[in-house]
Amino acid sequence: MPRLLLNADMGESLGPWKMGCDARVMPLVDLANVACGFHAADPDTIRATVRLAAQHGVTVGAHPAYPDLVGFGRRSLACSAEEVENLVLYQLGALAAMCRAEGARLGYVKPHGALYNDMMRDPARLAAVMRALAVFDADLPLMAMATRDPAVARELAAEHGITLWLEAFADRAYDGNGHLVSRAEPGAVHRDPERILDQARRIARGMPLTASDGSALVLEAQTLCVHGDNPESIAAVAAIRRELDRLEGAA
Amino acid sequence: MPRLLLNADMGESLGPWKMGCDARVMPLVDLANVACGFHAADPDTIRATVRLAAQHGVTVGAHPAYPDLVGFGRRSLACSAEEVENLVLYQLGALAAMCRAEGARLGYVKPHGALYNDMMRDPARLAAVMRALAVFDADLPLMAMATRDPAVARELAAEHGITLWLEAFADRAYDGNGHLVSRAEPGAVHRDPERILDQARRIARGMPLTASDGSALVLEAQTLCVHGDNPESIAAVAAIRRELDRLEGAA
Amino acid sequence: MPRLLLNADMGESLGPWKMGCDARVMPLVDLANVACGFHAADPDTIRATVRLAAQHGVTVGAHPAYPDLVGFGRRSLACSAEEVENLVLYQLGALAAMCRAEGARLGYVKPHGALYNDMMRDPARLAAVMRALAVFDADLPLMAMATRDPAVARELAAEHGITLWLEAFADRAYDGNGHLVSRAEPGAVHRDPERILDQARRIARGMPLTASDGSALVLEAQTLCVHGDNPESIAAVAAIRRELDRLEGAA
Amino acid sequence: MPRLLLNADMGESLGPWKMGCDARVMPLVDLANVACGFHAADPDTIRATVRLAAQHGVTVGAHPAYPDLVGFGRRSLACSAEEVENLVLYQLGALAAMCRAEGARLGYVKPHGALYNDMMRDPARLAAVMRALAVFDADLPLMAMATRDPAVARELAAEHGITLWLEAFADRAYDGNGHLVSRAEPGAVHRDPERILDQARRIARGMPLTASDGSALVLEAQTLCVHGDNPESIAAVAAIRRELDRLEGAA
Repeated sequence: MPRLLLNADMGESLGPWKMGCDARVMPLVDLANVACGFHAADPDTIRATVRLAAQHGVTVGAHPAYPDLVGFGRRSLACSAEEVENLVLYQLGALAAMCRAEGARLGYVKPHGALYNDMMRDPARLAAVMRALAVFDADLPLMAMATRDPAVARELAAEHGITLWLEAFADRAYDGNGHLVSRAEPGAVHRDPERILDQARRIARGMPLTASDGSALVLEAQTLCVHGDNPESIAAVAAIRRELDRLEGAA
Repeated sequence: MPRLLLNADMGESLGPWKMGCDARVMPLVDLANVACGFHAADPDTIRATVRLAAQHGVTVGAHPAYPDLVGFGRRSLACSAEEVENLVLYQLGALAAMCRAEGARLGYVKPHGALYNDMMRDPARLAAVMRALAVFDADLPLMAMATRDPAVARELAAEHGITLWLEAFADRAYDGNGHLVSRAEPGAVHRDPERILDQARRIARGMPLTASDGSALVLEAQTLCVHGDNPESIAAVAAIRRELDRLEGAA
Repeated sequence: MPRLLLNADMGESLGPWKMGCDARVMPLVDLANVACGFHAADPDTIRATVRLAAQHGVTVGAHPAYPDLVGFGRRSLACSAEEVENLVLYQLGALAAMCRAEGARLGYVKPHGALYNDMMRDPARLAAVMRALAVFDADLPLMAMATRDPAVARELAAEHGITLWLEAFADRAYDGNGHLVSRAEPGAVHRDPERILDQARRIARGMPLTASDGSALVLEAQTLCVHGDNPESIAAVAAIRRELDRLEGAA
Repeated sequence: MPRLLLNADMGESLGPWKMGCDARVMPLVDLANVACGFHAADPDTIRATVRLAAQHGVTVGAHPAYPDLVGFGRRSLACSAEEVENLVLYQLGALAAMCRAEGARLGYVKPHGALYNDMMRDPARLAAVMRALAVFDADLPLMAMATRDPAVARELAAEHGITLWLEAFADRAYDGNGHLVSRAEPGAVHRDPERILDQARRIARGMPLTASDGSALVLEAQTLCVHGDNPESIAAVAAIRRELDRLEGAA
């Protein structure tokens, strides 16, 4: 059983505004999705975040976004494919420079917010993101959403020579297609710590979840997305970390 | 006699707004100072500019600036040294990614506008810029102003392991310290094409200029800064290009 | 026959970047749609544009947009209705202050680019724009697109107590619903000056156009949108101006 | 004895980033300095802040700043006087629109951060700010720093027909000129609650403080600046509020 890696968004402060508990979450995760200045983070914040990741041996990933600080990159912006390619490339480069400055390595790319959702929905934008990776460093894996059938993403990745890292969620319900149930629906978010741990364990072992339509859903995932915004969520991350460590120890 | 290189600011358009005549100037220069998105240029503009430079075999330099689109990076911003270091690093990285995408090489760094003026006046900011280069790629030369006695810059450069490329101007009058005469003063800018050519020739040959206080001024410079904003200035650049080519052919 | 007013976008320069020929177009139009800083224009540009309008007795309209300089407000941004209401309100206020400073009056509102298109397509956004007008100054008319049947817009306007000013185009083909034929289609843009003049004349007189499906289309419009980006388009505006003046003189 | 008003900075959140405890501080103050979008605040934040002020009967003041989100408006930007005038005007208008929408009244103007410091130091910038008020609404008072001898500000205010509201600090030491002792100096900030209360009382009664050079310093002030960033500072504001209420009740 390959290791299931934990990834979390980091470096989402901006100038005087603080967000997240990076110092507490960093020791718990394997992968840090570091904001690149378009939805959050200024150059000082980025560098400090990369330094923190390096201190904890955490792999740094680029977390590029649409240019939208006020909307935190969560509002879809009707960019052309060329614009998407180039704004991803710009942010990759900026983050890569911070990594070089701190002796860290840029390890992967995970688009943020609306850009992530748009690329999962629109193969033209997904291809644009992949072109950015291909011309910058084709060895950089791209993180994308694990679904029941990620064939489109896999085909585009093969075409562009890009490795996919699929990510799943331990605290979210899935529908029959392996898409996240909308937060607007009841039961979309798991609150019960035991249930979250169980879902993490199942994903780590390749065991089926029960989708919202009752079907069995096996998600093939290399990484689990976690959040560390508050004490409760940090406790949940810590519990998942222990469980995954236990599973690996047992393996 | 080493070659005197011509450098010009490029890629200073922004979204729908065009600036400069890059396509006409690029064939005439050796070095393109490419805007990095903080005072001008969006990711698409940067990439197209780097591509144009690569097509003409022109070396790409980063042209980082204070974050100030409306003021075009010409208004001094009271940044800390750490902020300067990191904003330069961020912009270097973004531009380096565009170079990698276009098979070009990032060849040097020339700060823009108020950041350039501030670093020439304030050793703390100059050191900050140099630290950015040192942690990113200590082989990248830093372009700075040629003056009568550039000892401060040379010492800091030696300390940081950075190569200096000193730049002079063919169309500007110098004072006795080898600083540019302020544009507010009469006679600050040369208009006579013959005078401009003569000053370019003298700088290329290491021959003295006559400073505004009447003293002889030898400027040691590796590069000459030229502008291509309008047909007159492009004609001046072309004339300087021919003159330098002639001098080199004769050498 | 009421007067058909000419409106044009103005004040779309930004810092050092110039756009448009405002000084040449201003004498030809009745209504200046003035950029408010979100898709173009900085405070200095806005004030100078308002001053120019005041000098020519041209009515100033607010031209609010999504916050997107690089995309010039032409890229749809997935804002909530509340966000739309408040970003319109913010821009209205900023422009109104410039009008007060120059002794001009803010006369109407015309959303720009993607915000305009989105409000024509989405009644929730149209209502949000109207709420901004209603709380700021319900006497400000809202400019919207004339179509074969503008019932939705009229109903919302009545509900919010807002006056609609419908605008038509002299140089664009219309489909059977009275929507503009997409620029991607052949024949979408009229180039023949006589045809443009004829369409302006028909709209001014309330006479039918021939839609792209061959049907007769009467557009009820209070204003005609014109552009003054280059000498050709300015000549077209001048010709329309003369024709409308002639029609009114004859009336 | 006229009432000494308490003013505090408000509305300094931005998109997803929260700052300050506005809901807890608003009931304690008389004047809310509301960020206008250049150093902090988006349109939604501004409107919500104005609404909160209106609910508590607190007078809304504009808190315009240099355009610098990352630096929170604390970094001086070398703007021309014309730029200062117009950026203040722009922000005044935007905030005034929010006030109108919420049935509040814009009551005064207090420049923020570096703009405030620069105007206190540079009569050209102070005059530029006053021109913005004069052309927008000459009845709007301008808040400025109380010093031993505010003659320059008073003269400029008289010249521009502007009312000055001078503000003092209860928790800061003053030098012999009535300027704040730099935070870099020991003893610059008072921590002892009793001392803070005593300084507030003395300012309210027009009684002398002891300056850092030992001299007696009478500050004529109409308002006291307070901060509510954390529980301790909110407790201090509450104590000052009670003390001022007591003094007024006794008067």
